[in-house]
Amino acid sequence: MEETIKNEIMEFVSKQGIAMVCSVDKDGYPNSKAMFVADREDLSTFLFSTNTSSTRTKHFQNNAKACIYFCDLDDGRGLMLVGEMEVTRDKALREKIWVDGCEKYYPQGVDDPDYSVLRFTAKTGDYYHALKKYVFNVDEI
Amino acid sequence: MEETIKNEIMEFVSKQGIAMVCSVDKDGYPNSKAMFVADREDLSTFLFSTNTSSTRTKHFQNNAKACIYFCDLDDGRGLMLVGEMEVTRDKALREKIWVDGCEKYYPQGVDDPDYSVLRFTAKTGDYYHALKKYVFNVDEI
Repeated sequence: MEETIKNEIMEFVSKQGIAMVCSVDKDGYPNSKAMFVADREDLSTFLFSTNTSSTRTKHFQNNAKACIYFCDLDDGRGLMLVGEMEVTRDKALREKIWVDGCEKYYPQGVDDPDYSVLRFTAKTGDYYHALKKYVFNVDEI
Repeated sequence: MEETIKNEIMEFVSKQGIAMVCSVDKDGYPNSKAMFVADREDLSTFLFSTNTSSTRTKHFQNNAKACIYFCDLDDGRGLMLVGEMEVTRDKALREKIWVDGCEKYYPQGVDDPDYSVLRFTAKTGDYYHALKKYVFNVDEI
Protein backbone atom coordinates (compact mmCIF):
# COMPACT_ATOMS: atom_id res chain seq x y z
CA MET A 1 0.00 0.00 0.00
CA GLU A 2 1.19 3.51 -0.83
CA GLU A 3 2.65 5.50 2.03
CA THR A 4 0.20 8.36 1.42
CA ILE A 5 -2.79 6.05 1.88
CA LYS A 6 -1.26 4.53 5.03
CA ASN A 7 -0.81 8.02 6.43
CA GLU A 8 -4.35 8.99 5.44
CA ILE A 9 -5.75 5.93 7.25
CA MET A 10 -3.70 6.59 10.39
CA GLU A 11 -4.73 10.24 10.44
CA PHE A 12 -8.38 9.28 9.95
CA VAL A 13 -8.43 6.69 12.75
CA SER A 14 -6.62 9.03 15.15
CA LYS A 15 -9.60 11.41 14.94
CA GLN A 16 -12.27 8.76 15.65
CA GLY A 17 -13.65 8.72 19.19
CA ILE A 18 -16.48 6.31 18.47
CA ALA A 19 -16.53 2.97 16.68
CA MET A 20 -19.42 0.87 15.47
CA VAL A 21 -18.62 -2.43 17.19
CA CYS A 22 -20.07 -5.52 15.51
CA SER A 23 -20.54 -8.97 16.99
CA VAL A 24 -22.33 -12.14 15.93
CA ASP A 25 -25.21 -13.20 18.20
CA LYS A 26 -26.04 -16.76 19.29
CA ASP A 27 -28.33 -17.22 16.28
CA GLY A 28 -25.61 -16.10 13.84
CA TYR A 29 -26.96 -12.61 13.17
CA PRO A 30 -24.61 -9.62 13.03
CA ASN A 31 -25.22 -6.97 15.68
CA SER A 32 -23.90 -3.43 15.87
CA LYS A 33 -23.47 -0.81 18.58
CA ALA A 34 -21.70 2.54 18.83
CA MET A 35 -19.01 2.49 21.54
CA PHE A 36 -16.41 4.96 22.76
CA VAL A 37 -12.84 4.01 21.89
CA ALA A 38 -11.16 4.02 25.31
CA ASP A 39 -7.65 3.34 24.04
CA ARG A 40 -5.83 2.42 20.84
CA GLU A 41 -2.44 1.11 19.81
CA ASP A 42 -1.63 1.79 16.14
CA LEU A 43 -4.22 0.15 13.94
CA SER A 44 -3.97 -3.22 15.65
CA THR A 45 -5.46 -2.94 19.17
CA PHE A 46 -8.50 -1.06 20.42
CA LEU A 47 -9.95 -1.10 23.95
CA PHE A 48 -13.55 -0.51 24.98
CA SER A 49 -15.18 -0.58 28.40
CA THR A 50 -18.32 -2.63 28.83
CA ASN A 51 -20.71 -4.06 31.40
CA THR A 52 -19.73 -7.66 32.17
CA SER A 53 -23.46 -8.46 32.16
CA SER A 54 -24.11 -6.87 28.75
CA THR A 55 -25.48 -8.64 25.70
CA ARG A 56 -22.38 -7.61 23.75
CA THR A 57 -20.08 -9.24 26.31
CA LYS A 58 -22.01 -12.51 26.00
CA HIS A 59 -21.72 -12.40 22.20
CA PHE A 60 -17.94 -12.04 22.33
CA GLN A 61 -17.57 -14.69 25.05
CA ASN A 62 -19.38 -17.11 22.74
CA ASN A 63 -17.82 -15.91 19.48
CA ALA A 64 -14.75 -13.68 19.29
CA LYS A 65 -15.27 -12.77 15.63
CA ALA A 66 -15.72 -9.01 15.43
CA CYS A 67 -15.38 -5.91 13.36
CA ILE A 68 -15.13 -2.27 14.20
CA TYR A 69 -16.14 0.43 11.76
CA PHE A 70 -15.44 4.13 11.56
CA CYS A 71 -17.02 6.48 9.09
CA ASP A 72 -17.22 10.09 8.12
CA LEU A 73 -20.50 10.40 6.30
CA ASP A 74 -19.88 13.94 5.09
CA ASP A 75 -16.63 12.89 3.47
CA GLY A 76 -17.64 9.49 2.02
CA ARG A 77 -14.96 7.81 4.05
CA GLY A 78 -15.09 4.52 5.95
CA LEU A 79 -12.64 2.20 7.66
CA MET A 80 -13.58 -1.34 8.63
CA LEU A 81 -11.24 -3.48 10.71
CA VAL A 82 -11.97 -7.18 11.11
CA GLY A 83 -10.47 -9.37 13.81
CA GLU A 84 -11.04 -10.88 17.22
CA MET A 85 -12.56 -9.41 20.39
CA GLU A 86 -11.37 -10.60 23.77
CA VAL A 87 -13.41 -10.01 26.94
CA THR A 88 -11.05 -9.44 29.84
CA ARG A 89 -11.10 -8.26 33.44
CA ASP A 90 -7.35 -7.68 33.50
CA LYS A 91 -6.88 -5.17 36.31
CA ALA A 92 -4.15 -3.20 34.54
CA LEU A 93 -6.41 -2.72 31.52
CA ARG A 94 -9.37 -1.74 33.72
CA GLU A 95 -7.22 0.87 35.43
CA LYS A 96 -5.71 2.04 32.14
CA ILE A 97 -9.02 3.00 30.56
CA TRP A 98 -10.89 4.21 33.65
CA VAL A 99 -11.88 7.86 33.35
CA ASP A 100 -14.05 10.21 35.35
CA GLY A 101 -17.65 9.45 34.50
CA CYS A 102 -17.16 5.66 34.33
CA GLU A 103 -18.83 5.40 37.74
CA LYS A 104 -22.14 6.17 36.01
CA TYR A 105 -21.88 2.73 34.40
CA TYR A 106 -19.80 0.94 37.08
CA PRO A 107 -20.94 2.34 40.45
CA GLN A 108 -18.47 0.23 42.48
CA GLY A 109 -15.52 1.79 40.68
CA VAL A 110 -12.60 0.17 38.91
CA ASP A 111 -13.11 -3.14 40.76
CA ASP A 112 -16.84 -3.29 40.01
CA PRO A 113 -17.49 -6.92 38.93
CA ASP A 114 -19.79 -5.53 36.23
CA TYR A 115 -16.86 -3.65 34.63
CA SER A 116 -14.99 -5.50 31.87
CA VAL A 117 -12.72 -4.51 29.01
CA LEU A 118 -13.14 -5.49 25.38
CA ARG A 119 -9.79 -5.79 23.62
CA PHE A 120 -10.05 -5.87 19.83
CA THR A 121 -7.17 -7.14 17.73
CA ALA A 122 -7.46 -6.24 14.05
CA LYS A 123 -6.27 -8.59 11.31
CA THR A 124 -7.57 -7.12 8.07
CA GLY A 125 -8.80 -3.73 6.98
CA ASP A 126 -10.97 -2.20 4.32
CA TYR A 127 -10.65 1.54 3.71
CA TYR A 128 -12.99 3.43 1.42
CA HIS A 129 -12.51 6.98 0.26
CA ALA A 130 -13.28 9.01 -2.84
CA LEU A 131 -14.94 5.96 -4.46
CA LYS A 132 -11.74 3.91 -4.07
CA LYS A 133 -11.40 0.84 -1.89
CA TYR A 134 -8.22 -0.44 -0.26
CA VAL A 135 -8.16 -3.92 1.29
CA PHE A 136 -5.14 -4.73 3.42
CA ASN A 137 -3.64 -6.80 6.21
CA VAL A 138 -3.19 -4.74 9.34
CA ASP A 139 0.41 -5.93 9.79
CA GLU A 140 1.26 -4.23 6.47
CA ILE A 141 0.40 -0.84 7.96
CA MET B 1 -44.15 -1.01 24.38
CA GLU B 2 -45.40 2.43 25.35
CA GLU B 3 -46.92 4.52 22.59
CA THR B 4 -44.53 7.40 23.33
CA ILE B 5 -41.49 5.17 22.75
CA LYS B 6 -42.99 3.76 19.55
CA ASN B 7 -43.54 7.30 18.29
CA GLU B 8 -40.01 8.31 19.32
CA ILE B 9 -38.54 5.36 17.37
CA MET B 10 -40.60 6.11 14.27
CA GLU B 11 -39.65 9.78 14.39
CA PHE B 12 -35.99 8.87 14.82
CA VAL B 13 -35.87 6.42 11.92
CA SER B 14 -37.72 8.81 9.62
CA LYS B 15 -34.80 11.24 9.93
CA GLN B 16 -32.08 8.70 9.11
CA GLY B 17 -30.71 8.82 5.57
CA ILE B 18 -27.82 6.45 6.19
CA ALA B 19 -27.69 3.03 7.83
CA MET B 20 -24.76 0.94 8.96
CA VAL B 21 -25.49 -2.30 7.12
CA CYS B 22 -23.96 -5.41 8.65
CA SER B 23 -23.42 -8.79 7.03
CA VAL B 24 -21.55 -11.97 7.97
CA ASP B 25 -18.66 -12.87 5.65
CA LYS B 26 -17.74 -16.37 4.41
CA ASP B 27 -15.45 -16.90 7.40
CA GLY B 28 -18.18 -15.94 9.88
CA TYR B 29 -16.91 -12.44 10.70
CA PRO B 30 -19.34 -9.53 10.96
CA ASN B 31 -18.78 -6.75 8.41
CA SER B 32 -20.19 -3.23 8.38
CA LYS B 33 -20.68 -0.52 5.78
CA ALA B 34 -22.51 2.81 5.67
CA MET B 35 -25.21 2.81 2.97
CA PHE B 36 -27.87 5.28 1.85
CA VAL B 37 -31.42 4.21 2.67
CA ALA B 38 -33.11 4.32 -0.74
CA ASP B 39 -36.59 3.52 0.50
CA ARG B 40 -38.39 2.42 3.64
CA GLU B 41 -41.75 1.01 4.64
CA ASP B 42 -42.59 1.51 8.31
CA LEU B 43 -39.94 -0.18 10.44
CA SER B 44 -40.11 -3.47 8.60
CA THR B 45 -38.65 -3.01 5.10
CA PHE B 46 -35.64 -1.02 3.92
CA LEU B 47 -34.20 -0.86 0.39
CA PHE B 48 -30.61 -0.16 -0.61
CA SER B 49 -28.98 -0.06 -4.03
CA THR B 50 -25.78 -2.03 -4.54
CA ASN B 51 -23.39 -3.29 -7.17
CA THR B 52 -24.28 -6.88 -8.08
CA SER B 53 -20.53 -7.60 -8.09
CA SER B 54 -19.91 -6.14 -4.65
CA THR B 55 -18.50 -8.00 -1.67
CA ARG B 56 -21.61 -7.12 0.34
CA THR B 57 -23.89 -8.68 -2.29
CA LYS B 58 -21.88 -11.93 -2.12
CA HIS B 59 -22.18 -11.98 1.67
CA PHE B 60 -25.96 -11.70 1.56
CA GLN B 61 -26.28 -14.24 -1.27
CA ASN B 62 -24.41 -16.71 0.93
CA ASN B 63 -25.99 -15.67 4.24
CA ALA B 64 -29.10 -13.53 4.51
CA LYS B 65 -28.60 -12.76 8.22
CA ALA B 66 -28.24 -9.01 8.58
CA CYS B 67 -28.65 -6.01 10.79
CA ILE B 68 -28.98 -2.33 10.10
CA TYR B 69 -28.02 0.27 12.65
CA PHE B 70 -28.81 3.95 13.00
CA CYS B 71 -27.28 6.22 15.57
CA ASP B 72 -27.17 9.80 16.69
CA LEU B 73 -23.88 10.10 18.52
CA ASP B 74 -24.59 13.58 19.89
CA ASP B 75 -27.81 12.40 21.45
CA GLY B 76 -26.70 8.95 22.76
CA ARG B 77 -29.36 7.29 20.66
CA GLY B 78 -29.16 4.09 18.62
CA LEU B 79 -31.56 1.80 16.82
CA MET B 80 -30.55 -1.67 15.69
CA LEU B 81 -32.84 -3.77 13.54
CA VAL B 82 -32.02 -7.44 12.98
CA GLY B 83 -33.47 -9.54 10.18
CA GLU B 84 -32.87 -10.90 6.71
CA MET B 85 -31.40 -9.26 3.60
CA GLU B 86 -32.55 -10.36 0.18
CA VAL B 87 -30.54 -9.58 -2.95
CA THR B 88 -32.91 -8.93 -5.83
CA ARG B 89 -32.88 -7.61 -9.38
CA ASP B 90 -36.65 -7.10 -9.42
CA LYS B 91 -37.19 -4.48 -12.11
CA ALA B 92 -39.95 -2.65 -10.27
CA LEU B 93 -37.70 -2.24 -7.24
CA ARG B 94 -34.76 -1.11 -9.38
CA GLU B 95 -36.97 1.52 -10.98
CA LYS B 96 -38.51 2.50 -7.65
CA ILE B 97 -35.22 3.48 -6.02
CA TRP B 98 -33.38 4.85 -9.07
CA VAL B 99 -32.46 8.51 -8.61
CA ASP B 100 -30.32 11.00 -10.51
CA GLY B 101 -26.71 10.24 -9.70
CA CYS B 102 -27.13 6.45 -9.67
CA GLU B 103 -25.45 6.36 -13.11
CA LYS B 104 -22.18 7.14 -11.34
CA TYR B 105 -22.36 3.63 -9.87
CA TYR B 106 -24.39 1.90 -12.63
CA PRO B 107 -23.29 3.47 -15.95
CA GLN B 108 -25.72 1.41 -18.06
CA GLY B 109 -28.69 2.83 -16.19
CA VAL B 110 -31.58 1.08 -14.48
CA ASP B 111 -30.99 -2.14 -16.48
CA ASP B 112 -27.25 -2.26 -15.73
CA PRO B 113 -26.55 -5.90 -14.81
CA ASP B 114 -24.28 -4.60 -12.05
CA TYR B 115 -27.24 -2.84 -10.38
CA SER B 116 -29.06 -4.83 -7.69
CA VAL B 117 -31.34 -4.01 -4.81
CA LEU B 118 -30.91 -5.13 -1.21
CA ARG B 119 -34.26 -5.58 0.55
CA PHE B 120 -33.98 -5.81 4.32
CA THR B 121 -36.82 -7.24 6.37
CA ALA B 122 -36.55 -6.48 10.08
CA LYS B 123 -37.69 -8.96 12.71
CA THR B 124 -36.42 -7.60 16.00
CA GLY B 125 -35.26 -4.23 17.25
CA ASP B 126 -33.12 -2.76 19.96
CA TYR B 127 -33.54 0.93 20.72
CA TYR B 128 -31.25 2.77 23.10
CA HIS B 129 -31.80 6.29 24.40
CA ALA B 130 -31.07 8.18 27.60
CA LEU B 131 -29.34 5.10 29.08
CA LYS B 132 -32.48 3.01 28.60
CA LYS B 133 -32.76 0.02 26.30
CA TYR B 134 -35.92 -1.26 24.62
CA VAL B 135 -35.89 -4.69 22.93
CA PHE B 136 -38.90 -5.45 20.76
CA ASN B 137 -40.36 -7.45 17.88
CA VAL B 138 -40.88 -5.26 14.84
CA ASP B 139 -44.43 -6.53 14.33
CA GLU B 140 -45.33 -4.99 17.73
CA ILE B 141 -44.54 -1.52 16.41
